Order: sequence, then C-alpha cells, then structure tokens
Amino acid sequence: MTKARAEAFSDGVFAVAATLLVFSIPTPDPKLHLGSALLAELPSYATYVISFVTILVIWVNHHATIDAIRTFDRSLLFLNGLLLMTVAVIPFTTSVLARALQSGNDQEAAAVAYGVTATAMSLAFTFINTYAKVRRLFTTPFSLVGFSLGQLSYPVATVIAHFNYQVALAIYAATAAFYAVFPLVREAQLRRR
Amino acid sequence: MTKARAEAFSDGVFAVAATLLVFSIPTPDPKLHLGSALLAELPSYATYVISFVTILVIWVNHHATIDAIRTFDRSLLFLNGLLLMTVAVIPFTTSVLARALQSGNDQEAAAVAYGVTATAMSLAFTFINTYAKVRRLFTTPFSLVGFSLGQLSYPVATVIAHFNYQVALAIYAATAAFYAVFPLVREAQLRRR
Amino acid sequence: MTKARAEAFSDGVFAVAATLLVFSIPTPDPKLHLGSALLAELPSYATYVISFVTILVIWVNHHATIDAIRTFDRSLLFLNGLLLMTVAVIPFTTSVLARALQSGNDQEAAAVAYGVTATAMSLAFTFINTYAKVRRLFTTPFSLVGFSLGQLSYPVATVIAHFNYQVALAIYAATAAFYAVFPLVREAQLRRR
Amino acid sequence: MTKARAEAFSDGVFAVAATLLVFSIPTPDPKLHLGSALLAELPSYATYVISFVTILVIWVNHHATIDAIRTFDRSLLFLNGLLLMTVAVIPFTTSVLARALQSGNDQEAAAVAYGVTATAMSLAFTFINTYAKVRRLFTTPFSLVGFSLGQLSYPVATVIAHFNYQVALAIYAATAAFYAVFPLVREAQLRRR
Repeated sequence: MTKARAEAFSDGVFAVAATLLVFSIPTPDPKLHLGSALLAELPSYATYVISFVTILVIWVNHHATIDAIRTFDRSLLFLNGLLLMTVAVIPFTTSVLARALQSGNDQEAAAVAYGVTATAMSLAFTFINTYAKVRRLFTTPFSLVGFSLGQLSYPVATVIAHFNYQVALAIYAATAAFYAVFPLVREAQLRRR
Repeated sequence: MTKARAEAFSDGVFAVAATLLVFSIPTPDPKLHLGSALLAELPSYATYVISFVTILVIWVNHHATIDAIRTFDRSLLFLNGLLLMTVAVIPFTTSVLARALQSGNDQEAAAVAYGVTATAMSLAFTFINTYAKVRRLFTTPFSLVGFSLGQLSYPVATVIAHFNYQVALAIYAATAAFYAVFPLVREAQLRRR
Repeated sequence: MTKARAEAFSDGVFAVAATLLVFSIPTPDPKLHLGSALLAELPSYATYVISFVTILVIWVNHHATIDAIRTFDRSLLFLNGLLLMTVAVIPFTTSVLARALQSGNDQEAAAVAYGVTATAMSLAFTFINTYAKVRRLFTTPFSLVGFSLGQLSYPVATVIAHFNYQVALAIYAATAAFYAVFPLVREAQLRRR
Repeated sequence: MTKARAEAFSDGVFAVAATLLVFSIPTPDPKLHLGSALLAELPSYATYVISFVTILVIWVNHHATIDAIRTFDRSLLFLNGLLLMTVAVIPFTTSVLARALQSGNDQEAAAVAYGVTATAMSLAFTFINTYAKVRRLFTTPFSLVGFSLGQLSYPVATVIAHFNYQVALAIYAATAAFYAVFPLVREAQLRRR
C-alpha cells in the first residue's frame, strides 16, 4: 500500500517534470522571422531531448529498483523524496542551459549547474540502493545495469564543464543514451540465446 | 506491473500536456477593452481545441494499443517514451501557432512547426505498432481504426503548410475530428446490427 | 479497464488544473511594500478559492457519475474529454477575472468569460448524463444532487454578468458553495434517521 | 473506491505542487555572469528545499492518515479538498519568499505570508483528524507522530515573522526537518528492540 502510493506520487513528479521541460524552449524571438527564430533554437531542442531521455531513464531505473524492493519504510520514503527533489530541478537547469547555449554566453557555468543537479540525482539514487541493500529490502540480488556509470560520469562531466562545456554536454548525452540503449542490447542478447 | 506503471506515467504526461495547453492562450492585451481582447483571441481558442482533441485522440489510441499488447519490454518502454516526448512538445507548437495566427505574421512557419511535431508523434506511434507486431506482443490481430491516416495526413499537411497554412490547419483539424468521430460511427453501426 | 484509465486521465487533468490555479494569483507589484501588495491581491485569493472549490465540486460530481456508469464506450470517452477541455480552461478565466478585479477595469467582460466557460462545462456534464441515460449505462437510477442547478445558474449568471459582475460572481460562489454544502446536509439528515 | 480516487486526486495535487516549486527559483539575472547569478540565488534554493520537504512531509502524513481511515464520506472529501487548496498555494508563497530574500526587501511580510499558508494547511489537517475522530472513521486509535507540533509551530512562527523573519524561517525549516527525521528515529528505536 505504502509502496503503491509512493509509486503513484513518484510517477506524478516524473511525469510533471518531464512535461514541464517544454518550458525550457524559449518563446521564439519576435524580431526574427519565425522560421529563423525556430531554427536558432536548435540547441534548446537538443537539451530538451537530452533532459527528456534522462528523466525517462531515471524513471525506468526507479521503476526497476522499486519493483525489486519488498517494502517501503519511512526512511526509504524520504530518500525517494530526495531523488524526486533533484528530478524536479531538471526543468530549471535545462532552461538555464538552453538559454546559455542560445545566447553564447557562460555555457560553462550552465553546464556545471546541469552537472551538479545530475550528480545530486545520482547520489540520491545511490542512497536508495545502499539503504535497501544494507537493510536487506531487496527481494532478489539486485543491481541496475551499468549502475555505477552515472555515479562516475556525472561528477566527472561536472568538473570538465568548468573548462569545456561541449565535452561535458557530450557526456550528459552519452550517459542518457547508454542507459537507454544498453539494456536493449542485453535484452536482445538474452533473446538470441 | 511494468505495463501498469508505463500506463500511469503515460497518463500523467498526457494529462499534464493537455492541461498545459491553456498557457497557449495569451494573456489578453491590456491596451484593448477586455471584451475585444478576448474576441481577438478566437484563433487561440481554435488551436486550443484542435490540440486538446488531438491529445485526447492520441490518448485514446494509445490506450487501445497498450491494451492489446501482452507485455512491456525495455524497448517498448523507450519507444513509448519517444511518443510522450513528442506529445509534451504540443503545448509549445500550439503556443507558437496561436501567436502567429493572432499577430498575422509567419503563419506558414508556425503551421510547419506544428506539422513537424505531429509527424514525429505519428512516427513514434508507428514505431510502437511495428515493434509490437514484429515481436508478436499483440494479444489479438490488432489495428487502430484508420491508423494510416495520421501517418499520411500529417507529413502531407506539413509540406502544404509551406505554401498555404489554412489548408494545413484544416487538415490538422480534420485528422483530429476523423479520429474522434469515425470510431463513434463504427460503434453505432456495430450496435445497429 | 477503459473506465479505470479514463478515471486516471481525468483525475490527472482535474489535479493539474486545480494546482495551476495558483498562477492566477499575480506576482505582487514590486513597486508597493510587499505587505500592501499582498493585501491588494485579496480579490485574486477570492477567485482562487471559488475556482478551486468549483473544480473540487466538478471532480466530486464527476466521480459520483462515473461510479454509477457500468462501462465506458468511445462516445463517453470523448464526451468526458469535452468536459476536461472546459475544466482545463478554468485557470485561464480565473486569471483573467483576478486581473480585472484587481485593476478595476472591464470586470463585466471578465465575469462573462468566466461564466461562458462554466456554462460550457455544465453543458458537457449534461451531455455525459444524457448520453449515459439514453444508452442505459447507469447501473442505478442515478441523478446528481441538485444537478439542474448548475445548468441553470451558470447561463443566468453569464447573462447577468453583462450588467452587474458582482451579482454574477456571487452566483458563481453560491453555486460552488451549494454543491459543496448541500450533499453534506443531506448526508447528515440520512445519518440522523 | 471513493477513497482510492481521493488518494489519486490528492497524490496528483501533491506531485504537481511539489514539481511546480521549481518555478519559485527565478531566471538568473542576465546582467550578471551566470555563475555569480546562480550563486546569488542560494536563498531560492534553500526555500525550494524547505518547501519541497514540507510538501513531502504533508504527503507522508496525509498518506498515514488516509490509510488509517476506514471510509470516505462527502464531508471528508471536502475537508481533504481544503487541505489540497492550501498545499497548492505553497509554490506561490515560496516564490514570494525567494524573491524577498534575494532582493533583501520586505522579508518579514514574505515570511508572514508563508506562515499564514502553513498555518491554514495545518488547520485543514486538524479538521480532517478531528472529523475522523468524532465520526469514528479511524480503524485504529490513530495519532500522527508529533502531530500537535505543526499546529503550534506554524502560528507561532507567523507571529514571530512580523519581527524577525530569520527566526521564523528557522522554525519552518525545523518543523519540516522534525517531521522528516523524528519518525525515522522512532522507526530505528522500534527495530532495535
């Protein structure tokens, strides 16, 4: 029961955060022709896609983790809340990043802000996993596919972002793509056997 | 279980996207009398209705498709995410379209942007259907009523929008109306027999 | 199944629309002292409360209606969508009304706009009820408590709003209060017997 | 059934309100370097965290309360709606507070506004509890851990806010922290026995 309502609440936050991402795409500049203004927003579409896939991937992994957990206690409810608190910030950092890329100013600072949130999210996930392991709440020996990748790639990219935002963005995109594609590859391999 | 949570997440995105459409109606111009300002926004109300019915129709078709699918694997989760990513953009393109119609500038570009998103949405739907067919995930020989219409009408209208936005808008509206009304006609026919 | 997902989608739209109402409260005027600016927004708080209770009442009545309906067909899905389309507009008309009351201009036009949406909502509700009755989808002889009130009070108040917005607002508030309080009175009477 | 849909609706409002909190973080000032602008927003991040944890705590307590209630009648539906109406205002008062802290003006008035909403929320919670007790709707002798704290701390902090906003903010933060941490401590104690 507690688990069911925690899932419903989490799904709500994930769905709202994903849908609010659209507000990170700025209103087209009315001084330009609309066609040009929309094309000038290409970086915003890219950050929209990266963030949407990132939230989707967190949701899928969240779902897999919760599924493997036998029962929810109060501590887990609050660690879960911590995760949701970082997920709900993603529309803000995506918006900051989109604006910086479009204006061509301070892209490094924006990429750092994006990375700090992603690192906090990854940390919250680690807390949930570690707590569930220590308190033996997992029903099966559970580990997310490539779980440690995000724990590594987000802080590393955040450091790199201070010097080169393009490499940092590439890592954010690659991390999301890895989590999206790698399980598919493994699933396909399992089927072939 | 996976299917249930995918539905909950999808319903969340559909519901939020539909409700956010209201922000595509601009704040009435404070320099006009409010009555005139509200009447001047008639095109915004029309695009609101078209987009709301469109999202409703996607939701109904999504619901019918998911219902007919036996089980959700990872690939389907991500194809579903792809669909949601295009649905969540509709409030943005609706807003762009409403503003262009009201200002009387660049309506063609706005209608193209609307059509590109609708085409992407229709493509994502085709991916889901094709994948489910190829991997034999459908429980019954399944096909959506008039499924191929959107696959055809949205790209065609997007091309037409470059030259004549009014014809394009009429096709968008007609596509939504067709999906809304046609199943009702068929349902009524089935009852009469 | 269809009914369950229609409820989930509807609950989503109701919840999002109710929560978005908070954006109808304008950012306090930064030129005034914050205390005075917040007090100057009293009309906005009043319209917020009226609209929130109105959405709550629609949700409760929607819930009672759906509960009494045996099964959902396609037509009902779309009539339900029509209702949600009008509910999702309430944050907009509430915002228009709040701004008009605060500025002291064109309150009549704002009250008319509010009433038109409420009338449309009430009409959509009537469609659902009539359709379910004609197609004998109700499991029990069903009628909402005081159902015909809203069908009468909203159009009447919309007409009155052209001449006297204060009377119109009083009717909107009274209608919401009636639906909120009357069932409680009846429930209490039933218990006393 | 009624209880299940009331939970779904409530979870929706809680999830949307929590996710909308992100809009209380203002767009970084474009006249500053983005790094400095983001650092200057530290008070906004603090109020975001306090409000998010507050909503989380209300949700957890709401969940525990509803769980212990046998059945929902109409009165309870509306008392529940009253609670949701105060929760949905939190993004607004958080935004007002964040702006006041950042501008350094009228922080007292903003802290009062925040406290008034929190007090109203706490009152609505008391109504739900009292009603359920009087009408004997609780299945078990139920009382929330430290329930009376919020009933006391919010009005007291609201009064203090008139003179010293920093003490008031500390009490808001401490109240949220207490509800978040105290049950964990008790849970840990229960396990040790």
